[in-house]
Amino acid sequence: MYKRKVINDPVYGFISISDEIIFKLIEHPFFQRLRRIKQLGLTHLIYPGALHTRFHHSLGAMYLMSLAVQTLRSKGREISHEEELALLITILLHDIGHGPFSHALEHAIVSEVNHEDISLIYMNRLNEEFDHQLSKAIEIFKDLCPRKFMHQLVSGQLDMDRLDYMKRDSFFCGVAEGIISDDRILNMLNVHNDRLVIEAKGIYSIEKFLIARRLMYWQVYLHKTVIAAEYLLMQILKRAKYLRRNGSKLFSTPAFNFFLENEFFLNDFRNDEEVINKFSLLDDIDIIASVKVWQDSSDTVLSKLSKMLINRRFFRIEMQNEPFNKTYIENIKKAASHFLRSNEHETDYFVFQDVTTNYAYDPYNANINILFRDGSVKDIAEASDMLDISMISKPVTKYFLCYPKGLPSVDK
Amino acid sequence: MYKRKVINDPVYGFISISDEIIFKLIEHPFFQRLRRIKQLGLTHLIYPGALHTRFHHSLGAMYLMSLAVQTLRSKGREISHEEELALLITILLHDIGHGPFSHALEHAIVSEVNHEDISLIYMNRLNEEFDHQLSKAIEIFKDLCPRKFMHQLVSGQLDMDRLDYMKRDSFFCGVAEGIISDDRILNMLNVHNDRLVIEAKGIYSIEKFLIARRLMYWQVYLHKTVIAAEYLLMQILKRAKYLRRNGSKLFSTPAFNFFLENEFFLNDFRNDEEVINKFSLLDDIDIIASVKVWQDSSDTVLSKLSKMLINRRFFRIEMQNEPFNKTYIENIKKAASHFLRSNEHETDYFVFQDVTTNYAYDPYNANINILFRDGSVKDIAEASDMLDISMISKPVTKYFLCYPKGLPSVDK
Amino acid sequence: MYKRKVINDPVYGFISISDEIIFKLIEHPFFQRLRRIKQLGLTHLIYPGALHTRFHHSLGAMYLMSLAVQTLRSKGREISHEEELALLITILLHDIGHGPFSHALEHAIVSEVNHEDISLIYMNRLNEEFDHQLSKAIEIFKDLCPRKFMHQLVSGQLDMDRLDYMKRDSFFCGVAEGIISDDRILNMLNVHNDRLVIEAKGIYSIEKFLIARRLMYWQVYLHKTVIAAEYLLMQILKRAKYLRRNGSKLFSTPAFNFFLENEFFLNDFRNDEEVINKFSLLDDIDIIASVKVWQDSSDTVLSKLSKMLINRRFFRIEMQNEPFNKTYIENIKKAASHFLRSNEHETDYFVFQDVTTNYAYDPYNANINILFRDGSVKDIAEASDMLDISMISKPVTKYFLCYPKGLPSVDK
Amino acid sequence: MYKRKVINDPVYGFISISDEIIFKLIEHPFFQRLRRIKQLGLTHLIYPGALHTRFHHSLGAMYLMSLAVQTLRSKGREISHEEELALLITILLHDIGHGPFSHALEHAIVSEVNHEDISLIYMNRLNEEFDHQLSKAIEIFKDLCPRKFMHQLVSGQLDMDRLDYMKRDSFFCGVAEGIISDDRILNMLNVHNDRLVIEAKGIYSIEKFLIARRLMYWQVYLHKTVIAAEYLLMQILKRAKYLRRNGSKLFSTPAFNFFLENEFFLNDFRNDEEVINKFSLLDDIDIIASVKVWQDSSDTVLSKLSKMLINRRFFRIEMQNEPFNKTYIENIKKAASHFLRSNEHETDYFVFQDVTTNYAYDPYNANINILFRDGSVKDIAEASDMLDISMISKPVTKYFLCYPKGLPSVDK
Repeated sequence: MYKRKVINDPVYGFISISDEIIFKLIEHPFFQRLRRIKQLGLTHLIYPGALHTRFHHSLGAMYLMSLAVQTLRSKGREISHEEELALLITILLHDIGHGPFSHALEHAIVSEVNHEDISLIYMNRLNEEFDHQLSKAIEIFKDLCPRKFMHQLVSGQLDMDRLDYMKRDSFFCGVAEGIISDDRILNMLNVHNDRLVIEAKGIYSIEKFLIARRLMYWQVYLHKTVIAAEYLLMQILKRAKYLRRNGSKLFSTPAFNFFLENEFFLNDFRNDEEVINKFSLLDDIDIIASVKVWQDSSDTVLSKLSKMLINRRFFRIEMQNEPFNKTYIENIKKAASHFLRSNEHETDYFVFQDVTTNYAYDPYNANINILFRDGSVKDIAEASDMLDISMISKPVTKYFLCYPKGLPSVDK
Repeated sequence: MYKRKVINDPVYGFISISDEIIFKLIEHPFFQRLRRIKQLGLTHLIYPGALHTRFHHSLGAMYLMSLAVQTLRSKGREISHEEELALLITILLHDIGHGPFSHALEHAIVSEVNHEDISLIYMNRLNEEFDHQLSKAIEIFKDLCPRKFMHQLVSGQLDMDRLDYMKRDSFFCGVAEGIISDDRILNMLNVHNDRLVIEAKGIYSIEKFLIARRLMYWQVYLHKTVIAAEYLLMQILKRAKYLRRNGSKLFSTPAFNFFLENEFFLNDFRNDEEVINKFSLLDDIDIIASVKVWQDSSDTVLSKLSKMLINRRFFRIEMQNEPFNKTYIENIKKAASHFLRSNEHETDYFVFQDVTTNYAYDPYNANINILFRDGSVKDIAEASDMLDISMISKPVTKYFLCYPKGLPSVDK
Repeated sequence: MYKRKVINDPVYGFISISDEIIFKLIEHPFFQRLRRIKQLGLTHLIYPGALHTRFHHSLGAMYLMSLAVQTLRSKGREISHEEELALLITILLHDIGHGPFSHALEHAIVSEVNHEDISLIYMNRLNEEFDHQLSKAIEIFKDLCPRKFMHQLVSGQLDMDRLDYMKRDSFFCGVAEGIISDDRILNMLNVHNDRLVIEAKGIYSIEKFLIARRLMYWQVYLHKTVIAAEYLLMQILKRAKYLRRNGSKLFSTPAFNFFLENEFFLNDFRNDEEVINKFSLLDDIDIIASVKVWQDSSDTVLSKLSKMLINRRFFRIEMQNEPFNKTYIENIKKAASHFLRSNEHETDYFVFQDVTTNYAYDPYNANINILFRDGSVKDIAEASDMLDISMISKPVTKYFLCYPKGLPSVDK
Repeated sequence: MYKRKVINDPVYGFISISDEIIFKLIEHPFFQRLRRIKQLGLTHLIYPGALHTRFHHSLGAMYLMSLAVQTLRSKGREISHEEELALLITILLHDIGHGPFSHALEHAIVSEVNHEDISLIYMNRLNEEFDHQLSKAIEIFKDLCPRKFMHQLVSGQLDMDRLDYMKRDSFFCGVAEGIISDDRILNMLNVHNDRLVIEAKGIYSIEKFLIARRLMYWQVYLHKTVIAAEYLLMQILKRAKYLRRNGSKLFSTPAFNFFLENEFFLNDFRNDEEVINKFSLLDDIDIIASVKVWQDSSDTVLSKLSKMLINRRFFRIEMQNEPFNKTYIENIKKAASHFLRSNEHETDYFVFQDVTTNYAYDPYNANINILFRDGSVKDIAEASDMLDISMISKPVTKYFLCYPKGLPSVDK
């Protein structure tokens, strides 16, 4: 007989693993790999507590899902044991396709493959291995389940994924600003016409959630130095790929080398078992172990960039609401080229512009519906007493320009 | 002018870096290396939150030191700014000599070198680099300062190191049992005849601290599975060293390879700059990146052990108060040899006995003195109302026996 | 010699009382009285943890003041020991003039006397008693100190009073939404041209603070049921005063009776020592002890209202953005009069309308200034990246209508 | 249909009230009275946060009970909905018979009546009022239910009462030392032969619980000043009773007067409805409101004692392991008599000796049983690795002597 396991979690105290199939999925090497993939990539270089992994996050999201099921049942919504299990499995595995430093890697190595697609490939593999016990979970993940609220619990504006990562990220970063009242939000969940709604009493909590989310973006996720660090890694990967594909020898772990040497597309992940197998061996450790060695690379671009990352000499980064003036960029490039004694192609690794866009609340994607006592349902943007919620749903676009620290100052 | 920096810490909220020299020491690659060395080694495989690093711990201990100085000053003990700075530097750097997975590494690779000695080597190097600004700190570290309480704040039964790691470890493990009232203990600190004492009102807190410490030992530090994991890594390192020194080719990072190939003694660390330089490049990542690759090693012992670690198939471990019966061990070795199809030498990697001893309170090492209102001072073991404190100062010795899971059962 | 005292606080851990004069002020009966005056009046009937007192709040605000002084000094702002002491005393005593259930009492018994005026009367009394050691504190309290930031630390949009009550109230109510990062805000404090400013890095925290404050208003301070409870007490006091002043006998404590019988104005508090002496005997206990007995009063209005309070049968309360329709109110009065068998005068105790206005950020009162790196200073409303802060500074006005539960429904 | 209610709790976040009968019991005036009875009596005069009530504690204990039921069910122990409801009701009402300042009142006014007996009287009354829906709960309360573990969850060495009060008391006192891992202990609960057991893995947590409990005793429950305050109130009540029964007029609330005037025994509570009705009106407020007025009593003993309480001029208290020397007591009495200008009878109110005994673990009362993997069960005192647990189960007896502050010193 299966004996219930319990995992300690600084965030929620204890996470129970109530079913054997879930325990086995957690023990599977595909899932264990997430132990070696940090939730927030390089953010720990700025917030030193942010070392928590996708492994712990996935367990936390599963825990919140079990609470959500409990709440919905207490309100008379029937959820069968099979459905509950499927919900727990879906949320547990929702991030299983993530690679190390997703953002940087997706841009530099496995460019057109997103992690949801890979998660699905893994789920299908596991479904075969576990005698089709994951079929219902996959149905929910693909949003093919007629009870739409189930998919919404996994992926939506208020899904268990977001509730956990908001809380977990702010907890480990030590940023009290981002802490949300997940228990209150969960208590306010309900289902109306098979869709997830929040009871009217929960409006304030949702407002707070959206604002906390927005603040977490500016304070953590899009923190200037965090972006500077991520782009530094991206440039390193770009350079390493360039060198490797042009025949240079480079130290790297075998799994990492496989992806540095070759270009793979989604279909390769789907059809070529070796690709997914090698991907399963890849995690944060392969990347950082290699970058550490590259500090001594004979290629000065790679060596400079790698030293910058390991010694935390990130790019200087400027941010503004409009694109940067071309002449300004050119002038900085010139200064940098002189400073680094680099040619134009090389300088592009050290001076570049990019843009990021962020919604606190994205009404085009999926909305948060509020259920009133009289049975009516309104979008939070309309229901909120805070007249300004419309502002929150406006996208915020920021342009940023990166260049090495220590350049002589350049007129803007 | 130096602008005060602040670092977020989930444990204490904020840690201020008040002096430029301290900021520069933190930024130094020697210290930054501690970002890649987990405080609790492999414990995160059992307590998944336990990913915190020696970097964060050292900052935390420094924070507590600043509080301790503040308390002592408020009680009329004069501590000059220079002394304060020296105390902060000493505690900040006290762990700088740690290597990755200290316990395992010290037993398998750099066998007779302890981390305090290496810390001192680093401090001396930094002292030269920073124009002898660390001289006072080194004096305190070496316990050459006549104001004995200063060294006691850095290293003693109630030093800032212990106060921080007890709190930080229990926090990140999610083990509320270990949480101690550092603020109450700090409030009770005083100095009497140049030695650290606790005011009588703080007796209960000290008792609680000693008990919490003992419990942390059994629940975390000497948790059966944690020990099984650590010994597994130790066996892996032993095997890798054996193979490498017998000429086998093995994947590893260059820094790690340097220590696999050669045997170094303390004098080498002291006298050969290359040794300390290479050591400075070594951290958790080198070890784990290599073990991951070794899963596919052609040496079946190394490959089996490495797979066991990465897939969390640790040894089964038995613990008891007396040594294990020799026949029992022999029988298990036979069963294991048959099970693994291994020869005697190989089997020794999979079946072995060891012993561990632990004091919650070690009266022979340094004691905790209680200061009473009448000016008298007593050892906590004598002062405590809890008659049983003498028990706590008894060493607890545990023997344990490790062997692979899945063996047929063997008579004891 | 004075020996530093320490008080336990669930919110901050420990509060040190570093100076003897402060210890003596805390021990004074005027201040001890605050132990019997709850910070949030009747709110504990809705949030049962909200039993914390003005005593504890005042200590907490003093604690935050000591941290603020420490931060400002660390940034090179000189604050003498005398000034520090004055700041601690001012904030400690800022609420000493509060009576029990201030809101209800101010409206029903001591109608035109506000608590700041009474605080000042107490401070002057204490100043005489303590040989003019409070003179500087009184100067700051009255905003006569040329270093304007000192008064701002005591009373402003970001004073230590607000920082403590926001945190303390949300803590004891168990409403995580209101928790603010006081340590981060304190860390961002600075002084510019003798006025308090927040460094630019702290903008997000201020935004969060303003939003948390707004939410605390709707979730706690202006919670419908909290208002219904407060107005119920107000009606009880009004009725009791009416009865007493019309010669009825009523049980009450002597101190309470003194204020039921007579009408006192600010000048009476200032000039008639008996008034302030009797006021010093009055606290929550006098009021509730009397209301409990009034449940059996021969006056049915008083008895009904008192029973409603003690048994938590509060008014039903409707809230809306516009005044209520007169006919609607009249119809409810008719229904209530019939339901209660009461005449028109009596019915007015049970059916009434009122209005409340609230700012999250009141730019007309005092503003929060942000200090940028280039030395420029902007109002938060202008400095904020969140375009919508202007909305937050709009007053929100709510009309509400109270009437007994259980009335037959009335057309609106 | 009943709509689930939720109550905010700073300790656990949210407490759900899942059944209508429970909601109605909470709303009942008998239970609401507990809102006005502090869990820790006068302790808040020493730990100012300790204002939490028996009301909140009872809800908290009910919350823990619901978790315990959930855990036991997850381990395959069947608990019917009816049984669950009965368990929740029993623990909710277990303290309903408490009067204000139980300790002081039980010794001075209702001397031979303990609160469990009164709780039962209330339960029987409520059972009639609620159509015998409490019968099963009463059966459990009286330990007549054959499934013995049910009573043990309500009253035993590890019942939900203790788990909640330990955690709640330490939380509100701000004494981190007392915080226990209720979630871990709950997780380790199991049932063996119809009795409550703790699984072997939970031994450390139990040890920690017992030690935390012992420390809470010395730090809070038997804190010298707390005892001095309680005995002061006891002396006040004794004097007031003496005066009232000798015909003096005394201000007091009617309910309080009823008990000052008359002596009631358990049978009066059982048979005379007026006694229980009047008792239901009595709470902390009646007592303190009266003591406040008694400060001006014409009886100098009463007035002196009352002033001492309100102004926190408690007795000086000495504590030791043996009875105090008679001559010493006599000498103190003489000094006090002279100091207070009091006769012998009067002096006895100001100088007295008493004794208190306390077990951290009382093996004679009920024990904590540990269930091992092999199915064997041992008492914790035997099972514990900590050899010294036998010490913890030794009773600790303390003698204390109270007398007024300010006496000239007397030879011992």
